[in-house]
Amino acid sequence: MKKTLLLPVVFGLLLSIQSVAQTDDVKTVMRSLYSESLSNGQSYQMLDYLSNTIGARVSGSPQAAEAVEWGRQKMEILGADSVIMQEVMVPHWVRGKKEVGTILSDKIPGGVQKVPVCALGGSIATGEFGIKGEVVEVHDFDELNKLGEGKIKGKIVFFNRPMDPTLINAFEAYSGAVNQRGGGASEAAKLGAIAVIVRSMTLNHDNNPHTGAMHYADGVEKIPAAAVSTNGADLLSKFIKADPKTAFYLKMNCQTLPDEKSYNVIGVIKGSEMPNEIVTVGGHLDSWDLGRGASDDGTGIVQSLEIIRMFRTLGIKPKRTIHIVLFMNEENGLRGGTKYFEQAQKDVSHKYIAAVESDAGGFSPRGFNIDTDQISVNIIAKWKPFFEPYGVYDLKKGGSGADVYQMKKLKAITMELAPDSQRYFDIHHNKNDVLDKVNPRELELGAATMASMVYLLANFGTGN
Amino acid sequence: MKKTLLLPVVFGLLLSIQSVAQTDDVKTVMRSLYSESLSNGQSYQMLDYLSNTIGARVSGSPQAAEAVEWGRQKMEILGADSVIMQEVMVPHWVRGKKEVGTILSDKIPGGVQKVPVCALGGSIATGEFGIKGEVVEVHDFDELNKLGEGKIKGKIVFFNRPMDPTLINAFEAYSGAVNQRGGGASEAAKLGAIAVIVRSMTLNHDNNPHTGAMHYADGVEKIPAAAVSTNGADLLSKFIKADPKTAFYLKMNCQTLPDEKSYNVIGVIKGSEMPNEIVTVGGHLDSWDLGRGASDDGTGIVQSLEIIRMFRTLGIKPKRTIHIVLFMNEENGLRGGTKYFEQAQKDVSHKYIAAVESDAGGFSPRGFNIDTDQISVNIIAKWKPFFEPYGVYDLKKGGSGADVYQMKKLKAITMELAPDSQRYFDIHHNKNDVLDKVNPRELELGAATMASMVYLLANFGTGN
Repeated sequence: MKKTLLLPVVFGLLLSIQSVAQTDDVKTVMRSLYSESLSNGQSYQMLDYLSNTIGARVSGSPQAAEAVEWGRQKMEILGADSVIMQEVMVPHWVRGKKEVGTILSDKIPGGVQKVPVCALGGSIATGEFGIKGEVVEVHDFDELNKLGEGKIKGKIVFFNRPMDPTLINAFEAYSGAVNQRGGGASEAAKLGAIAVIVRSMTLNHDNNPHTGAMHYADGVEKIPAAAVSTNGADLLSKFIKADPKTAFYLKMNCQTLPDEKSYNVIGVIKGSEMPNEIVTVGGHLDSWDLGRGASDDGTGIVQSLEIIRMFRTLGIKPKRTIHIVLFMNEENGLRGGTKYFEQAQKDVSHKYIAAVESDAGGFSPRGFNIDTDQISVNIIAKWKPFFEPYGVYDLKKGGSGADVYQMKKLKAITMELAPDSQRYFDIHHNKNDVLDKVNPRELELGAATMASMVYLLANFGTGN
Repeated sequence: MKKTLLLPVVFGLLLSIQSVAQTDDVKTVMRSLYSESLSNGQSYQMLDYLSNTIGARVSGSPQAAEAVEWGRQKMEILGADSVIMQEVMVPHWVRGKKEVGTILSDKIPGGVQKVPVCALGGSIATGEFGIKGEVVEVHDFDELNKLGEGKIKGKIVFFNRPMDPTLINAFEAYSGAVNQRGGGASEAAKLGAIAVIVRSMTLNHDNNPHTGAMHYADGVEKIPAAAVSTNGADLLSKFIKADPKTAFYLKMNCQTLPDEKSYNVIGVIKGSEMPNEIVTVGGHLDSWDLGRGASDDGTGIVQSLEIIRMFRTLGIKPKRTIHIVLFMNEENGLRGGTKYFEQAQKDVSHKYIAAVESDAGGFSPRGFNIDTDQISVNIIAKWKPFFEPYGVYDLKKGGSGADVYQMKKLKAITMELAPDSQRYFDIHHNKNDVLDKVNPRELELGAATMASMVYLLANFGTGN
């Protein structure tokens, strides 16, 4: 009787001592990661090389291939135990010559007014002589469908629903508007439209067209799809109100070339105690072409590489294996993310317990969006006290990064770093996506936050 | 018996219903403030005028006078019940011609290396021919005093303690370094130094010297004080290590002119129920001269003006009186803040219950630093749930703004808006303090956060 009473007490005491020691360890490790990143961080320097020396990296381009080789070498230099080159065939879309977009109306002095446009990624060209047609402005697919074939056939459809500025999280505003860009062309083509122009996805009022992926629905005629700057969209809308006969001239030379061979670059840090359990972390190496891919997603790439450097420099030995993945082709196909998931699914000798992406910008980190059931979210949320000293408060349910969300099917907990969102869509997919828009300290704080989460996942697991 | 039992129940029920209704009201008002600011905000447009058309506004300068008049007119146009022009005499320091700073050493090819310097605000000039002397590098006053008169007399003292990059809050890093700038000249002069050069107060590594106030201690000889850019400081330190005979040449033409008459501009919104209780809110209208005073503190000024505009537009009628104050001379004297406090102290017909400043930048708001006892902090902290939907989490103890902290003596609760701090010292007191470094949405979120706090204080009081 005494024994059975005593044992749980001693055991509980031991557990409690162990837990205090673990808590102190975590605090010490995380403090060392933040200090290292803020004092000796190489993320900004790497980002300078990736965005300025290599530059924009559209899937299938020579620059994307150069970035793959750079990533491989970096991982070796920084001290990955091994580097896996995971082959993947990717689309190869090229923009061609700078696009032309012109409003045509008798209400315009001289009859024509040029506005800044760009082809949406994946669009077909307009042909050598461009395309011209009367413009019909709509704000959503319901409005489009109510107009019907009678009003749409032979016309250019102008999707002009702005991102909602009153939403505090800019990503929510994006989610509420982006279906116009992704699916607008096919929706309009079903009613006989000859082209679509889409208001740029930004909360800014400026003259920069923002590109981004669009996709054609199967069995629907492909028509050209362009983005117009927000100021250009406001102008076009104004002319349409003044003159219902307002037309638009669009010329684009983009084309889709044959698929190219490319790679996910996977750096491996082998786990010291549970090498068969894997924590995946990464960003995407490809980018759009109008800027230099500094923010989207150079920041996620260099933050991921920093994890290798900092773990090596600080002697942090993860108990589980870490895959640091530079994903290819997030922007227009997700072939890399899908390939990684498919290979993981086939890989019966490993258990993929968690996957973390940084693809929401290199701004001050504020939390993680965790894409799993509430019970698992609660497990991760217990680590809140470790993050709070660093201003990182939100460990909560939310959508994970595009490259890693499929890993849910393997019961991995997937999540995405959630930085402050306010500036993201100023920079996103347009000429502003350059190094100067990334603040070194904010980037470094994000790197330390990613490294801390990976350390916690690798050493304490997910309880799954 | 029944009655006495019933009454508290009914009373409690009534209280609870009232409290739910109040909570809903607060939520509705705050949502309307954020939506108004993000959709129709005029803060960025006002900041454009203040920083670009008027420009830098050093106390006593014609631009400061122009800003005072602009502020007065704005308040009338936006609908203040009345505008009080509170006279205050302010210092008038002028920079004069661009400063020259040169490292002199045999280790430099050609013997001289120019570095970017600027006079610290309030410094005396070097005289027409400049000043030259061997440089002694120190990192704090202890090190300086240990060297003593024997090593310091006749020398130029170089204060080179960097801001600590491992501190997460950049203001803490600033606090840990800024005594070199403020008091370094007199500390060095006590030991016979002929001038001081201070490493710029920034976490950035760049070529911009950062100015800022310095003050001469009574009874100590005044010697010239300059800031050197962080890259310049690193270079100077390198040469001193290589060549202990390294000297420095400094030329500055700054001077202090007679005091000028200026004003705090006070917009009044009269309270509907408790007009004799006052909530003070503001920023400072003066700025340094190397940039255009967009961030420091144009952002605080336009956020304060937005409160008038939004309250009028949305029909928000505060129960207590609000003073919206554009303080003069925060940067080099605090004469405006002191004058406002002195007048409030004399004003026996009003009770000053709270004072809020925005002078920490127009970045994403993250909370308020509340400078009072923990019991009063807890009263304010009860409003956390109202702010959390807007990403504003930290209602906690901390230092309040310089212009309002003296109001504590009148038992007002003083506080400062606490935005994300990472970029503040990139911009602070140097040529980067321009409109382009301020993000419209971040500025607007700050304006709505300030307006919400003022609304809560004015309608629900502080419990004091």
